Amino acid sequence: MIRVGIVGGTGYTGVELLRLLATHPKVEVTVITSRAEAGRKVAELFPNLRGHYDITFSNPSVTELAECDYVFFATPHGVAQGSVPELIANGVKVIDLSADFRIRDIALWEQWYNQPHACPELVGQAVYGLPEVNREQIKTAKLVACAGCYPTSVQLGFLPLLEADLVDSNDLIANSASGVSGAGRQASVANLLSEASDSFKAYGVAGHRHLPEIEQGLEDIAKQPVSLTFVPHLLPIIRGIHSTLYATVTDKSVDLQQLFEQRYASEPFVDVLPAGELPQTRSVRGSNVARISVTQPQGRNKVVVCVVEDNLVKGASGQAIQILNIMCGFDETEGLQAPALLP
Amino acid sequence: MIRVGIVGGTGYTGVELLRLLATHPKVEVTVITSRAEAGRKVAELFPNLRGHYDITFSNPSVTELAECDYVFFATPHGVAQGSVPELIANGVKVIDLSADFRIRDIALWEQWYNQPHACPELVGQAVYGLPEVNREQIKTAKLVACAGCYPTSVQLGFLPLLEADLVDSNDLIANSASGVSGAGRQASVANLLSEASDSFKAYGVAGHRHLPEIEQGLEDIAKQPVSLTFVPHLLPIIRGIHSTLYATVTDKSVDLQQLFEQRYASEPFVDVLPAGELPQTRSVRGSNVARISVTQPQGRNKVVVCVVEDNLVKGASGQAIQILNIMCGFDETEGLQAPALLP
Amino acid sequence: MIRVGIVGGTGYTGVELLRLLATHPKVEVTVITSRAEAGRKVAELFPNLRGHYDITFSNPSVTELAECDYVFFATPHGVAQGSVPELIANGVKVIDLSADFRIRDIALWEQWYNQPHACPELVGQAVYGLPEVNREQIKTAKLVACAGCYPTSVQLGFLPLLEADLVDSNDLIANSASGVSGAGRQASVANLLSEASDSFKAYGVAGHRHLPEIEQGLEDIAKQPVSLTFVPHLLPIIRGIHSTLYATVTDKSVDLQQLFEQRYASEPFVDVLPAGELPQTRSVRGSNVARISVTQPQGRNKVVVCVVEDNLVKGASGQAIQILNIMCGFDETEGLQAPALLP
Amino acid sequence: MIRVGIVGGTGYTGVELLRLLATHPKVEVTVITSRAEAGRKVAELFPNLRGHYDITFSNPSVTELAECDYVFFATPHGVAQGSVPELIANGVKVIDLSADFRIRDIALWEQWYNQPHACPELVGQAVYGLPEVNREQIKTAKLVACAGCYPTSVQLGFLPLLEADLVDSNDLIANSASGVSGAGRQASVANLLSEASDSFKAYGVAGHRHLPEIEQGLEDIAKQPVSLTFVPHLLPIIRGIHSTLYATVTDKSVDLQQLFEQRYASEPFVDVLPAGELPQTRSVRGSNVARISVTQPQGRNKVVVCVVEDNLVKGASGQAIQILNIMCGFDETEGLQAPALLP
Repeated sequence: MIRVGIVGGTGYTGVELLRLLATHPKVEVTVITSRAEAGRKVAELFPNLRGHYDITFSNPSVTELAECDYVFFATPHGVAQGSVPELIANGVKVIDLSADFRIRDIALWEQWYNQPHACPELVGQAVYGLPEVNREQIKTAKLVACAGCYPTSVQLGFLPLLEADLVDSNDLIANSASGVSGAGRQASVANLLSEASDSFKAYGVAGHRHLPEIEQGLEDIAKQPVSLTFVPHLLPIIRGIHSTLYATVTDKSVDLQQLFEQRYASEPFVDVLPAGELPQTRSVRGSNVARISVTQPQGRNKVVVCVVEDNLVKGASGQAIQILNIMCGFDETEGLQAPALLP
Repeated sequence: MIRVGIVGGTGYTGVELLRLLATHPKVEVTVITSRAEAGRKVAELFPNLRGHYDITFSNPSVTELAECDYVFFATPHGVAQGSVPELIANGVKVIDLSADFRIRDIALWEQWYNQPHACPELVGQAVYGLPEVNREQIKTAKLVACAGCYPTSVQLGFLPLLEADLVDSNDLIANSASGVSGAGRQASVANLLSEASDSFKAYGVAGHRHLPEIEQGLEDIAKQPVSLTFVPHLLPIIRGIHSTLYATVTDKSVDLQQLFEQRYASEPFVDVLPAGELPQTRSVRGSNVARISVTQPQGRNKVVVCVVEDNLVKGASGQAIQILNIMCGFDETEGLQAPALLP
Repeated sequence: MIRVGIVGGTGYTGVELLRLLATHPKVEVTVITSRAEAGRKVAELFPNLRGHYDITFSNPSVTELAECDYVFFATPHGVAQGSVPELIANGVKVIDLSADFRIRDIALWEQWYNQPHACPELVGQAVYGLPEVNREQIKTAKLVACAGCYPTSVQLGFLPLLEADLVDSNDLIANSASGVSGAGRQASVANLLSEASDSFKAYGVAGHRHLPEIEQGLEDIAKQPVSLTFVPHLLPIIRGIHSTLYATVTDKSVDLQQLFEQRYASEPFVDVLPAGELPQTRSVRGSNVARISVTQPQGRNKVVVCVVEDNLVKGASGQAIQILNIMCGFDETEGLQAPALLP
Repeated sequence: MIRVGIVGGTGYTGVELLRLLATHPKVEVTVITSRAEAGRKVAELFPNLRGHYDITFSNPSVTELAECDYVFFATPHGVAQGSVPELIANGVKVIDLSADFRIRDIALWEQWYNQPHACPELVGQAVYGLPEVNREQIKTAKLVACAGCYPTSVQLGFLPLLEADLVDSNDLIANSASGVSGAGRQASVANLLSEASDSFKAYGVAGHRHLPEIEQGLEDIAKQPVSLTFVPHLLPIIRGIHSTLYATVTDKSVDLQQLFEQRYASEPFVDVLPAGELPQTRSVRGSNVARISVTQPQGRNKVVVCVVEDNLVKGASGQAIQILNIMCGFDETEGLQAPALLP
């Protein structure tokens, strides 16, 4: 059994790690930290875990965490930076679900996150955690910066087109929508049921922190400059991201359906739908699968790619466990095989 | 035009007063107070009011409020107590939507609200604001304590049965459910969409503050002691209260359908459904109407009364305006005629 | 009092006409037809209308409808075509909420709606019912084809940009999302709460019937060819459309915020939000207002316009009443002044 | 591997059996029938199952079903009656999720289900499938009639009180509420998202088919006559049942919290919450657990029991698999260990 720790276990990505790991046959959660809830059993905070865990939140302690083989950071940005160096020095491997180590350009990170980076020297060693792109590097990484929720959906959708250089990379549009759990488990008026339900809105149109992460990822894939217009929206659902991607096709002779199917044929968690079908977020609720459709409306020169994922699973905790499986040499689907909950 | 002020205008009962008064032909809102939002236009906070109000939140000031003919308190409990005496001394009439003046037994109020009452001398002068019970007293009142949201629904449902002494008043059950807006517009984890949607739960089973208010009201109606079991539940909807009431019938010879229809025949805001129909909360969404059904399952000796209302309208702001109309001698339905929003 | 009839009153646009007209001071609904529900009172079918209407559904009859001054068709496409000629011959003015007379190119209509047009000779006389574009022609029209729900939102959003010739009209994108009421009140598995709630999906990506209507409208506005990629999505809410529009700006020197504010300064039902604010569908729930924001992310050359409307009001029945007011010479806002329901 | 068949696999209990069995290590689904969908792959109908099943719907055939070890009927009432005798004659064991074999009094069944019973001779052999009551009989049964969704919640809640004879069995009240999936996957106007969401209502107050089933079960437990008032309500959620139970305590000296904890101490799927905590439906979403609280408000003589379950899991398909595990001698939790999905 692999021993894992979770730092910041009271948010939604924390409880989702616990939910998924409860049925993972090769992993034991030995430490879970939370300053605010230290001393409480996790099942007191998350009633779905009653009967599954007897573990208690503890105050974060490098000594205790250093006894783990792997540590997940399920913390807001800015937190992992402070503890990761010491853990890595102690031989612990780190899977960071936050944004701390995702952007290689430190100045760019500092500009969008509006604070100095506490640990710039480790950024270069971090592997960007999107297995469909970086599986080989993940295998041997000491520190993995899991791809963000929106970034995962947008990169998986554009990837086959950019790898094959079939679209104008200077004119990409990602119209994305996320369930409210993406905003985390902090008290806020804007995310009250009375405010966010039975409504829909765009936000961050002028600029969202995931833009530089996505553009960096797309440029790595395209191996050329990329310009993306990214507009996130807030969906009145708990879980689920839907990204509708638009690009101008530069070579209309290629069969895009076939391109997508071939590119993802051996990926365990990317499902290219048959031509004519479109994905819905509920089809991946609670599962680590991303489902993708590709369409060229009216045979014109725009391609529309639709991607769905569960923002807490493939967009966060499921992807983190997929990465753990890769790092450990386990079957990549271990603990992640359950179908989505539908209806 | 009547000049009205609103104290505590940033909560849901505040914005609902503004929404309803926007089309009231005889009322002008001249003051709206909020410490936190002083200086902001109301339409900045509540985007549905853009184009309807040019008014700005101000700091609470008795001087300014004293220029109003009527002042609504849309504040948490404990606030109105502090300002009402001075306003009344200045000749302003007060309609309090909070719980401050609802319970005549000061000790009982202090026990349930866990604080000393700042103004016990006015409690006796306050008229309990449930027009279907106290219309005459409301006409000449200086201070009206609007009935609470749950209490309105429970009292309207039991009223015909208790007035006619047809049920065992010592064994009443009210199983009520409210939309999340009943919890107000405060940031809280429990009322986040991610926590409260797609779920249902009871709360306050061991004791809820509306219990003493309801029992007092039912005893006033029944003119005998009453014992009620009251269990509120949280519905994953924004607006709406549904109360399912149970009582044991002591005289099975009476036609209860006819009883209810006759009792409410001249009430503008109580709609007794035809026999066999059951009410749904959406049928009163945004409207001041309460709809009621009465059923005796299998001809046994239990009667089941279902009552729906919009907790922000008949359960709060609409009822307050109905009371204002009564106090002013206006048509009781002025400003409250629009049908519910359905679908 | 103007006498109006409603054909096809059992769908959502029918009940919405009734809801809005219930408070219209100058209009009386004298006839409402439904083959399936003939003989039933409207309030039996729509419980929000109890106490507001005593009218009964009748079988469609030209004789009866010919006694109205105006007749609304709230029917599926293909129905109005059959009755409109006779009504117009009888001097009745017709406001058609369906798609029957929206598209001037008969062959194009027949291709997208997959049936022969029964009344092509009237198509040329029909005025396209979007007051912000065609107010003058509406004043004297005998037959108005109300703009569709998605088309209203997309045209209002692109209008200032296309009139001023500031964007590449060959590369427009409309990413729209609608509440489920847009699919009507027909029994269907796909629109069950258990299927459509807590989920989100695109549909009709390969082609949607509103595409030719929108392109025709945009070309009328732009006075040049237009190519639009239009992707509708299904929102898990009852009411509301949100359109996120993307275009490439050809002249970056123009202040787009000012352009939008000036264009819509005198429009009673188009609200341009202050710079930096974004619209949400709930801010127009039940109201005839469309709210619009315009943003140029990161100062790049894409403009993003967000538009919200209530699909049953500004997208259908409210717009039809606005058009009725224009045709009758009433104040354009008569019966449409109530603020949106929020929360 | 046990070979199982599913009759009527296109409803929600059918897809839920497939979802849960996908991770059951000892069961293989070899046949799934549907007249309407014969020839289609299950994953075409249920997108969450893509990648998990390659099986195709077939026309119901006793020959084919007879090759199974166990057959689940996930059909509307009236269907299983026709095929079960032949299957049992062929040595197949049957687990019926429908109401066909739940009620021992044939006349009572025929009265409530309004049709003659096609197979009364087997009713007496059927074991009522509520493991917490009938575990021993289930072990050797040939035909199990799974307890209904509402009946499971109500019986589990009253069971400790009735077994211990601590409440007045002539005055029981069950106020229950169910998510919309309980109404099945049939097209209907009433269950459209536009009709059922953002609303709440009671239904079947005058009489619901689950009443005789529940009263029979409670009488089996109480070993004396029982009179229950049962009022179901429709919740605007997909999954989940919440039953709020009321009874009059006849002996106030007993510690009910302890009673419940002891009664269910060894039950793998009944979780008695600590005193003071109340259950919420989301805490069992997708899981086979029922969670229960017991409260005596204000120390009066009413006891209030709250029970939550997932109507499709413990209320249907999960319970059926629990029963399969018992019949097969497997660990009772096999395939049912995953925690609920929260948030």
